[in-house]
Amino acid sequence: MPITFDAPSKDKAELETGTAFTPRFDESGLVTAVVTDAKDGELLMVAHMNAQSLALTIETGIAHYWSRSRNALWKKGETSGNLQTVVELRTDCDQDAVWLKVSVAGHDATCHTGRRSCFYRTVSNGPDGAVLTITGGEPQFDPAAVYSKN
Amino acid sequence: MPITFDAPSKDKAELETGTAFTPRFDESGLVTAVVTDAKDGELLMVAHMNAQSLALTIETGIAHYWSRSRNALWKKGETSGNLQTVVELRTDCDQDAVWLKVSVAGHDATCHTGRRSCFYRTVSNGPDGAVLTITGGEPQFDPAAVYSKN
Repeated sequence: MPITFDAPSKDKAELETGTAFTPRFDESGLVTAVVTDAKDGELLMVAHMNAQSLALTIETGIAHYWSRSRNALWKKGETSGNLQTVVELRTDCDQDAVWLKVSVAGHDATCHTGRRSCFYRTVSNGPDGAVLTITGGEPQFDPAAVYSKN
Repeated sequence: MPITFDAPSKDKAELETGTAFTPRFDESGLVTAVVTDAKDGELLMVAHMNAQSLALTIETGIAHYWSRSRNALWKKGETSGNLQTVVELRTDCDQDAVWLKVSVAGHDATCHTGRRSCFYRTVSNGPDGAVLTITGGEPQFDPAAVYSKN
């Protein structure tokens, strides 16, 4: 039977310290998902989940998200082979975000640009405003080759 | 002069590999902010920033957010003393999220429940659906005492 989620409690203490997992989906039906690498804690990506993708993630142990750009269920790594196996799943105090510690298969890369993490640029304050510096390493795969298979 | 942000480029390559920091604020004017502890990488919280709070964060080096519940600028730790000094700021491939590596002052706690991290509960799949287990340690301060000062 697929996992379903009860409506969040209106009681703040119950929401914050209870044992019922009652995600607070936003007006678009989504919670924020933060994804780190279980092996060293590196932040890999930030994505979103609806009830369906969250249930599938819990049931299968493989990370599923909701793609806001494609408006579709998204089994991360289905095309690239970089599937994410969930080592641990947590939620936050008010249950509107989840944290996935994952093990990444395939190229050990999560970003669609081919890099290990989506967070490969540092922001700094320059004389003309905030600027970016690429600090996150080289792509681990060639996106043009990997995604052109579709 | 306060930092301002140019509109995001429509060119995907420029957005993803360029050096211009042009955050893609959503329809509510917000980007997602993921906050980890610079000393050990622990995920502390997920919050949101509008242009004002992001600019203040970059200018002052102290994390500022936008409180969606209070609809107000939020200098994190102003009441509790648990200010966050930004050690590094990153953005992701499509520039709709930022990652702050911070050093936490005061009680070395980030969650309003007094705990170090907001992510103090693990989700697991039980016979009656998904359940939570508190795994994230004891509160570092008493919220009732700290927040009642206001």
